[in-house]
Amino acid sequence: MAAQLSPQQLTETHRTTLDQALEAIRTRAYWSPHPEHPKAYENDGKAAFDALLGTRLDLDQPGTDDWTGAEVSPYGTELGISYPHPDLDVLLPAMKAGMGAWREAGPELRALVCLEIISRISARTPELAHAVMHTSGQAFMMAFQAGGPHAQDRGLEAVAYAYQEQTRTPSDAAHWSKPQGKRDPLELTKNFIPTARGIALMIGCNTFPTWNGYPGLFASLATGNPVLVKPHPRAVLPLALTVQIARAVLAEAGFDPNLVALAAERPGEGIAKTLAVRPEIKIIDYTGSTAFGDWLEANARQAQVYTEKAGVNTVVVDSTDDYKGMLSNLAFSLSLYSGQMCTTPQNLLIPRDGISTDAGAKSYDEVVADLAASVGGLLGDDARANAILGALVNPDVKTRLEAAAGLGEVALASREIANPEFPDAVVRTPVIVKLDGAKPDAEAAYLSECFGPVSFAVAVDSTAGAVELLRRTVRDKGAMTVGAYTTSQEVERAVEDVCLEESAQLSLNLTGGVYVNQTAAFSDFHGSGGNPAANAALCDGAFVANRFRVVEVRRQA
Amino acid sequence: MAAQLSPQQLTETHRTTLDQALEAIRTRAYWSPHPEHPKAYENDGKAAFDALLGTRLDLDQPGTDDWTGAEVSPYGTELGISYPHPDLDVLLPAMKAGMGAWREAGPELRALVCLEIISRISARTPELAHAVMHTSGQAFMMAFQAGGPHAQDRGLEAVAYAYQEQTRTPSDAAHWSKPQGKRDPLELTKNFIPTARGIALMIGCNTFPTWNGYPGLFASLATGNPVLVKPHPRAVLPLALTVQIARAVLAEAGFDPNLVALAAERPGEGIAKTLAVRPEIKIIDYTGSTAFGDWLEANARQAQVYTEKAGVNTVVVDSTDDYKGMLSNLAFSLSLYSGQMCTTPQNLLIPRDGISTDAGAKSYDEVVADLAASVGGLLGDDARANAILGALVNPDVKTRLEAAAGLGEVALASREIANPEFPDAVVRTPVIVKLDGAKPDAEAAYLSECFGPVSFAVAVDSTAGAVELLRRTVRDKGAMTVGAYTTSQEVERAVEDVCLEESAQLSLNLTGGVYVNQTAAFSDFHGSGGNPAANAALCDGAFVANRFRVVEVRRQA
Repeated sequence: MAAQLSPQQLTETHRTTLDQALEAIRTRAYWSPHPEHPKAYENDGKAAFDALLGTRLDLDQPGTDDWTGAEVSPYGTELGISYPHPDLDVLLPAMKAGMGAWREAGPELRALVCLEIISRISARTPELAHAVMHTSGQAFMMAFQAGGPHAQDRGLEAVAYAYQEQTRTPSDAAHWSKPQGKRDPLELTKNFIPTARGIALMIGCNTFPTWNGYPGLFASLATGNPVLVKPHPRAVLPLALTVQIARAVLAEAGFDPNLVALAAERPGEGIAKTLAVRPEIKIIDYTGSTAFGDWLEANARQAQVYTEKAGVNTVVVDSTDDYKGMLSNLAFSLSLYSGQMCTTPQNLLIPRDGISTDAGAKSYDEVVADLAASVGGLLGDDARANAILGALVNPDVKTRLEAAAGLGEVALASREIANPEFPDAVVRTPVIVKLDGAKPDAEAAYLSECFGPVSFAVAVDSTAGAVELLRRTVRDKGAMTVGAYTTSQEVERAVEDVCLEESAQLSLNLTGGVYVNQTAAFSDFHGSGGNPAANAALCDGAFVANRFRVVEVRRQA
Repeated sequence: MAAQLSPQQLTETHRTTLDQALEAIRTRAYWSPHPEHPKAYENDGKAAFDALLGTRLDLDQPGTDDWTGAEVSPYGTELGISYPHPDLDVLLPAMKAGMGAWREAGPELRALVCLEIISRISARTPELAHAVMHTSGQAFMMAFQAGGPHAQDRGLEAVAYAYQEQTRTPSDAAHWSKPQGKRDPLELTKNFIPTARGIALMIGCNTFPTWNGYPGLFASLATGNPVLVKPHPRAVLPLALTVQIARAVLAEAGFDPNLVALAAERPGEGIAKTLAVRPEIKIIDYTGSTAFGDWLEANARQAQVYTEKAGVNTVVVDSTDDYKGMLSNLAFSLSLYSGQMCTTPQNLLIPRDGISTDAGAKSYDEVVADLAASVGGLLGDDARANAILGALVNPDVKTRLEAAAGLGEVALASREIANPEFPDAVVRTPVIVKLDGAKPDAEAAYLSECFGPVSFAVAVDSTAGAVELLRRTVRDKGAMTVGAYTTSQEVERAVEDVCLEESAQLSLNLTGGVYVNQTAAFSDFHGSGGNPAANAALCDGAFVANRFRVVEVRRQA
């Protein structure tokens, strides 16, 4: 096949971006090539999205034995889109056919092809925003940003790490000459070739199909592995479009489009479990429940398994010199996407004797009441509430939310919000429940992940007690994020020590426009990979280094 | 404790060496700071070694509840040295006490302390050579080089990789400023702190206690983890001396010496199995049998597990333009340390119709006979034979060697060699057995690892058949090394493709003084980590990147 996208064209278009990404992951300064504002894009994506509804999305994959799809938007409408269902005995071998040419392309050309894929995804950000919104339940603006530029940033970051890791050894033959005293030196030439492990399986999640999916997808592809994308059955569209774009770019660049394929499943099929133990699958990326993540780690022994599972995120509230800033920052963190982020704080640990603030001493009850008022104020206007909350992603979240009110004294009741544009959307404000940390029966509540718009204001005996509970929580339950508010150097140090010892990412005294539940690619790590919430961080050297192996060929010089 | 070894002293002494190591792993050119020749050292180490015999080696470790040790040299003498046996419930907590200060030292100081340890080991190379010789059975010169400078090189290489990986993120606070249009930018300061995983367990092997042990030991220590060294019960001394040196340096540099400790075991105790599943153990390095390696990978789920297990190494013999060079190169590879290297070729695949060479066409029988003659010639002189062969490391090797003669037609019989200096040493020349690759009953022999001085000259139908058998062997049995001799570009490409696709390290047409079973640190990878023989390579990014995690602490700027 004649390449329409030549290596030279790809270099001209993307090499500078790759270099900038490499520089950003080194300095950790702010950088992104993907605009966040809808106005930066050609159109609003609505027409393109609407045109997809009720259609069959044919990806022209080999081994398609059926068509499947039953997505219903959390905003109420059936998408009515059907996707190819794979005959694995045909699709998997077909995916391996192009591996040789993809290996021979080398790390740089692979990275540039990945950047072309990401840049075409970027151009279709508005359309993908609707796809993410109507599968995850995120509000449009969040779906736009987190599902668009921020996800693309995370994909590009993974490509940069993968490129850097593969180019640690010389791409041209290295000359090796070992002196032998008076005799001739020993001389060899050595080639070091990064080689793929095999087919990578990326198992997508419902809430952040692109943001959580792109790092594994692009890390595997950039390191030479074909990638089979297994989306969550309720969030197929964003990843199906991604696969479609990737296949087109691969073909235009002269590679086998089957290096990327989709594995949509029939309702209840559980194809991930079948795929995970296939001998062809050598890498698995997974975001989802602890139960299935643990199952993968225990059973998919032929593969490298990267998991992000459940955790219990904690904020230690000790003291602050910006009480209002703290309250409004926390209120937004608890509310964004109805608390349905793996990074949303769940347990707010507050000394029962209260805290000191720039607005004077505040009792435990006052802090909780003020936080409740802050959340209430933030979400007091229904239009704004809808824009922040989005919709509940599935009925389980609603069930958990309703049950939470029975766990303790309700400091802030959840409120139903009507969405005039989407009357069937289930929109709820967060509940804040007071719990006494000293009561053993409260532990069962606050030491489990209660995914959704539920927070626990846990009264603790002292800040020292909060720090110890933080340690126990991270060690036993895992955490994607930890936050703390304190004006005391000593407390800061104690919280920091827990995070360093138990491996958790810490945000201190956030009172402005950055929130504990948000991380920026190229700068912040998402998760640590060192506590039970996840065995990998997005994105670091360990996330890419074992997705390929280096084969050395040495010859007598 | 006042530091006698200040950071400044360590920097002055070792920073240049660290920089040279970093440069070497990048260029892969020859480099080593550790002299190979005995004359470069102050003395021959004999007196120091003799002074250890029959003593109690007290490492001043906490939690010592007994003394144990039953090493018998493969050269015949009992070492009579006893070592501390640990009460794990005392030793393990004591090992964790110094982790905070070791973390705070940071990647550079940790690397420099490791270099000081390695440099003191280097100074005692002659003494350690005797220790390696009298535990592994290696001949003195090999124990000197492989157990001394080459092992030290591999340790230093691991330190360089660990340092590089930990310093990918800024050590000083990074400033992050995200523009917000007309509003003030979002500003954060961010610290990135490499943090340890927990106690690392290094399980040593009998044949190369230092060479196979140092990479894991130093990779873990340099990334902030305490290291518990569990030596093979027949090869304790070299690692006990290593631990002693490490503890002394740590203390002098102001750190807790318990960051490195020894776990010697009572005969038959199987302490590795107990240790491997202790919750404190977060990293395991292991070299040894496939059975126990597989057990570790399946059961030590709380730890990162790095294994080197059994494999079947193959040499494809297709054609050569240096027949004599090929024969003498292969003869030496088969003979060195009685074939007791994980990298020694086992199966020589030779077309039954013969091969073309610069000395004319050679039939299968001629090639095998000429190779047998070459081995016979190399080992014809008993003094030279002893210097090359060393001694059989344990009675199992002798049993396997004796059984091998019954597996097929013997092309070269094993010969008993007397060692006048050590009359009790069991010294044997290699056996070469002819097998017909087409006969299914021969497969059981050549497709199992037959560790020791046993090689199979396997007659195959064609070079293409050899290439396919190579693929099957690497895929199903694993391989640490692959060799090939060919003058055909096509065959070279076919063998290379198998090695790239099945992830095996390839040496082509070696006819001089470099052997397929030898790798040089800073340049060659030992194993690939991508086939069943090992899940890690010495040394690459993946070997170090997951031994620590990076914790980020971000603050409102």
